[in-house]
Amino acid sequence: MRASARISRQTWHFQNEIRLLGSGVAVGPLEGQGPLAEEYDHIFEDSYAGEDTWEQAERKMMTQAIEVALNKSGLTAEDMDVLLAGDLLNQIITANYTARDQQIPLLGQFAACSTSMQGLALASALVDGGFAKYALTGCSSHNSTAERQFRYPTEYGGQKPPSAQWTTTGAGATVVGLGGSSGPRVTHATIGKVIDLGIKDPFDMGAAMAPAAADTLLTHFHDLARAPEDYDLIVTGDLGKVGSSILVDLMADVDVKLVAPRYDDCGIMIFSPDQEVFSGGSGCAASAIVSYSHIVDGLNQGRYQRVLVVATGALFSPVSFQQGESIPCIAHGVVLERVSSA
Amino acid sequence: MRASARISRQTWHFQNEIRLLGSGVAVGPLEGQGPLAEEYDHIFEDSYAGEDTWEQAERKMMTQAIEVALNKSGLTAEDMDVLLAGDLLNQIITANYTARDQQIPLLGQFAACSTSMQGLALASALVDGGFAKYALTGCSSHNSTAERQFRYPTEYGGQKPPSAQWTTTGAGATVVGLGGSSGPRVTHATIGKVIDLGIKDPFDMGAAMAPAAADTLLTHFHDLARAPEDYDLIVTGDLGKVGSSILVDLMADVDVKLVAPRYDDCGIMIFSPDQEVFSGGSGCAASAIVSYSHIVDGLNQGRYQRVLVVATGALFSPVSFQQGESIPCIAHGVVLERVSSA
Repeated sequence: MRASARISRQTWHFQNEIRLLGSGVAVGPLEGQGPLAEEYDHIFEDSYAGEDTWEQAERKMMTQAIEVALNKSGLTAEDMDVLLAGDLLNQIITANYTARDQQIPLLGQFAACSTSMQGLALASALVDGGFAKYALTGCSSHNSTAERQFRYPTEYGGQKPPSAQWTTTGAGATVVGLGGSSGPRVTHATIGKVIDLGIKDPFDMGAAMAPAAADTLLTHFHDLARAPEDYDLIVTGDLGKVGSSILVDLMADVDVKLVAPRYDDCGIMIFSPDQEVFSGGSGCAASAIVSYSHIVDGLNQGRYQRVLVVATGALFSPVSFQQGESIPCIAHGVVLERVSSA
Repeated sequence: MRASARISRQTWHFQNEIRLLGSGVAVGPLEGQGPLAEEYDHIFEDSYAGEDTWEQAERKMMTQAIEVALNKSGLTAEDMDVLLAGDLLNQIITANYTARDQQIPLLGQFAACSTSMQGLALASALVDGGFAKYALTGCSSHNSTAERQFRYPTEYGGQKPPSAQWTTTGAGATVVGLGGSSGPRVTHATIGKVIDLGIKDPFDMGAAMAPAAADTLLTHFHDLARAPEDYDLIVTGDLGKVGSSILVDLMADVDVKLVAPRYDDCGIMIFSPDQEVFSGGSGCAASAIVSYSHIVDGLNQGRYQRVLVVATGALFSPVSFQQGESIPCIAHGVVLERVSSA
């Protein structure tokens, strides 16, 4: 056993030079009007993406993200030993049908909106441990597939409070491998515990998820003897305006200062203030499309040296909500570092 | 990179002595009347398991299986670095709420009825790679939670054809760790590809899943230069009578003989012929409750030296079915070996 891979119960240290050999991002039309638009690889002008159903459109976006990631890595689907993928849809059908079409062995993941970093952490572990030469990750969400599954048909026009979040339409993918000549390094991961402080309102998921983000952040800082200042950027996945301000308060309570621009939230970064998305973006795609475009670009270009992505997930279902259960939440963190070309 | 952990694209070889330090099985009343009843750790006499809802009952069964597994291993929930768990319910709420109550870091898995072996393969990889000292796996299914989610309310009394399968009620859990003084060894895993030959009938899942089982079996035999005769027992997860006879035919077509009693199917083994379960049992619990009771006992007692468990999963959803999609399937295999006490 290479004991040093396990820093602590929750934090892993990858022993080898695990790199993002390629990453790809595809987004929907609203995301394509946001402030990060120029950094996305592909913007679909229509939420159907030329398909007959929104579910098929979501699959097309995951496929597109995968194809861009493969293309950037110079590798093919046949080179990938395994795909770690997931999405918000019941029985993660986006991942299942995408894996079928790509013919890559599948390990299906579900961590709600934190699926992006769960998949990246596990892919990195499998490559680091020598189980896979190359591992592919993928995750996606689509506003219209999520709305009709979790809430009401879009046509119903249900009103939402300002604390509600807007499920992001898009997908992100990465090719994880050893060494290589480009792409940031994945150095550490911190696996989250399920935290549930009793919030039951699905229109206030940011408030429900903030304590899980705080728990993972504090565990991460403790395990690595680090502080926010050790990172050029710390992003949460999709706490939105409400949740991220709660997170800042929770951290301040224990004397850890999360301040802009060092701290930001992907769900806020995706949209401009004049786009009507309530408290901000959410969905598996939120953390993925920001991490695999803006953050990877920033690391490659030297704008950032070290970034911590803490993807957040609300692990409830319509049935658990209807049965009066509170919303259990989780957050998984992954550290990305610039590899200097010296 | 320890290159030898990767035998091939799909097959892993664990380098260390990865053992099932404990395993636990809890089942519902119908399963408790089946031929393996004496080998189960806990039989709930009522499908509500003393809870208010079937969903809560399913969680209680997963919790019970985990507690038995921990108890047999002599370890506690605090000793577990990570829980790899999943179930059939939308957003895998059984796993999420169980992980919340156990306060073990969670990596949520979804591979439909093949979740058992996906979780065990990943848990073994994380321990083998030094990321976890001890990893816990869990999976569950419940006939009544599955019926109302995937089909009709039980009260509706819908008729089913003989090729239909009966979702097993129960849960299984394992504690995975290095060395130790008892419990079988996990030596290899073969990760499945998604196979879809175009079957669209959810009442004939065995036929849909059989080609995925064949693909994983043939890959496994090829990668390790093994044949069925190298195993004392090969079980599929839940092909049932219809699916397992198709698998035997598919294998015979390529001159690989799967014959009883060397080959069996967990979905068939759980119930006696006079129990009315159509083609046989299905569900995440099927492969888990047989593997973690009957098979682990057989390995511990010397009745078996080496067993291959190929858990099978149908990766569709009610939405994908309603949209006219076919049923993508997968199968993940894990090899368990007796460790002689010499």
